[in-house]
Amino acid sequence: MSGTTARRRVLRVPVSGTAEHRADLLAVEEPLEIRVDGEPLTVTMRTPGDDIDLAAGFLFTEGLLGGLDEVHEIRMCDPNVAAVTVKPGHLLRYQQAGAPSAARRFLTTSACGVCGKDSIESIRVRSAFDVAADPVRVSPAVLVSLPDRLRDAQRVFRSTGGLHAAGLFTADGTLLVLREDVGRHNAVDKVAGWALRSGRLPLAGHILLVSGRASFELAQKAIMIGVPVLAAVSAPSSLAASLAEEGGLTLVGFLRGATMNVYSGAGRVAS
Amino acid sequence: MSGTTARRRVLRVPVSGTAEHRADLLAVEEPLEIRVDGEPLTVTMRTPGDDIDLAAGFLFTEGLLGGLDEVHEIRMCDPNVAAVTVKPGHLLRYQQAGAPSAARRFLTTSACGVCGKDSIESIRVRSAFDVAADPVRVSPAVLVSLPDRLRDAQRVFRSTGGLHAAGLFTADGTLLVLREDVGRHNAVDKVAGWALRSGRLPLAGHILLVSGRASFELAQKAIMIGVPVLAAVSAPSSLAASLAEEGGLTLVGFLRGATMNVYSGAGRVAS
Repeated sequence: MSGTTARRRVLRVPVSGTAEHRADLLAVEEPLEIRVDGEPLTVTMRTPGDDIDLAAGFLFTEGLLGGLDEVHEIRMCDPNVAAVTVKPGHLLRYQQAGAPSAARRFLTTSACGVCGKDSIESIRVRSAFDVAADPVRVSPAVLVSLPDRLRDAQRVFRSTGGLHAAGLFTADGTLLVLREDVGRHNAVDKVAGWALRSGRLPLAGHILLVSGRASFELAQKAIMIGVPVLAAVSAPSSLAASLAEEGGLTLVGFLRGATMNVYSGAGRVAS
Repeated sequence: MSGTTARRRVLRVPVSGTAEHRADLLAVEEPLEIRVDGEPLTVTMRTPGDDIDLAAGFLFTEGLLGGLDEVHEIRMCDPNVAAVTVKPGHLLRYQQAGAPSAARRFLTTSACGVCGKDSIESIRVRSAFDVAADPVRVSPAVLVSLPDRLRDAQRVFRSTGGLHAAGLFTADGTLLVLREDVGRHNAVDKVAGWALRSGRLPLAGHILLVSGRASFELAQKAIMIGVPVLAAVSAPSSLAASLAEEGGLTLVGFLRGATMNVYSGAGRVAS
C-alpha cells in the first residue's frame, strides 16, 4: 500500500435489522523507519506521503538536526525507509550524545532518588528561535474561522474519519499547507519539514492549527519551528500549557464555534 | 503535580462580546521514565497514576517481558520514574537483542534496497496467547451499550475533555476496569498491566474498548494480552485491520449510536 486510503470490505451491523457487507475506506498506516548514516534511529507509524518532510521535520523539531546545511541527503531508499546522510564533519546531536531521542534527552542519572528535577527542564529541547519576541496579533474572528478552513481542505479525513490534521496559516487566516496523518505528531512534523525544506523557518507571524488535542510535544514542536501561535480544536494538557507559558507561545484550545480558551500569550489575541 | 487534573486560569474569548478570565481544569501530562536495571529504556508522556501498571503493561505488550516471574521488582523511585529490576539469570528481551524497543523490532539490515519485506512482519511482536481460538460470542446489543458505559465512568474526561480511555468489559457488558490517560497507548498499557499484575491473563472472552481510533499498536496490544475483541468508537487504520485479520482478533470500529462496522472476526458478533 502506498496511498493514503485503503479500501476494505466490512460488515455493517445494526442492533436491529440485517447486517450488510459494504466497502469502507480506511486511512493507511505503515511504519516509517528513519535511518541516519545507515543506523536505524526510530520507527514511526504514519500515513505514507511527504515522508522526506516527515523525516526532516522530526529530526529538526526533536533538536537532533540544526538545519539542512548539516545534511548531505535525505532520500527514500525503500517505501518505508527514509535514509539520512550527514555531511562529513557533522554529526547529528543524538550521535554526539551517544543515545537516541527521548532517552537521550531525559534523566541521565542512573541512581534512584536524584532524578526529581523539573520535568519540563528534563525533556524540553532548546529552540533556535525566540517565539516570545514575535509581535504578531491575531483577531478572534480569524481564529474561529480556521477549523472550518482546515476541515474543508481535509480530503482524506472526509473519506475515512481516521486522520489527524495540522495546518499552517498566516495571521490573516490564509492556509499555506495542510498535512494529514494517522499520527498527530507526524502531521505536525510534515508541516515542519515542509517549512524547513522550503526555507521558511522561523515561522514568525504564523498560526499552527491542530485538529485534536495539544500535548507537550506539539507545543514543543511549535516553538522549535518558531511559530508564535498554536491553536487546537480540543483540550491542551497541563504540560502543554506550562511549556507554552514558559516559552512565550500563545496557546489556544477548544477553538470551536464562536469561542476559544487562551491558555498563554493572550496578548496576541486582539479584538 | 501528581493528580490527574490541574487547575489553570484561562481567558475565554468570544468573537463578539467581552473576554473573561475563568478557571479551567486540564488533564495532567508528565513524563514517565521506565528504567530497567538502572538504565533508561523509554520515556512516555502520560497522566500520573497507575504507573506501575503502565510500566508492566508497556513491557509486556511490547514483548520485552514474558511475565512477572522474570521480574524482581517494579517500583516508583521518583514520581516520574518506574524502576524495573530483572531477576538474576533473566534479561529483558531488549537487553538480549542489545537495542531498545521499536528500532530493535524493525528492519535490521543496514543496506538500502533490501528492506522491503512485509511491514507487519517487520514490526509485529509474537503473542503467547492464541486469540484466534477464542470461541466467545458478543451480541450487537451489548456492544452498542459499551461506549455509554465507558463515558459514564470517565470521571476525568468529563472535567477536562482531554483524556483517552480504555475499558475492559466481560462479554455480557460488565465493566471490569477503566483507565484514562493523555496517551491512548498508555490507557491500554495501564489496563494490560492491571490484568497482568492481577493474574488475569490471557483475557479470553473479554472486550477491550477504546475511546478513539484503533491503530496498529492498539490491535497488537490487544493480541498480546489475549483479548479477542477490540472495539473503537472511531475509525481503525488499515494496518490495525490487517493485523486483526491475521491474528484472529475481532475488530469493531465506528461503534456509535445503534450501529458498528466489523472489520475482522465478524463470526464473534452474533445477534
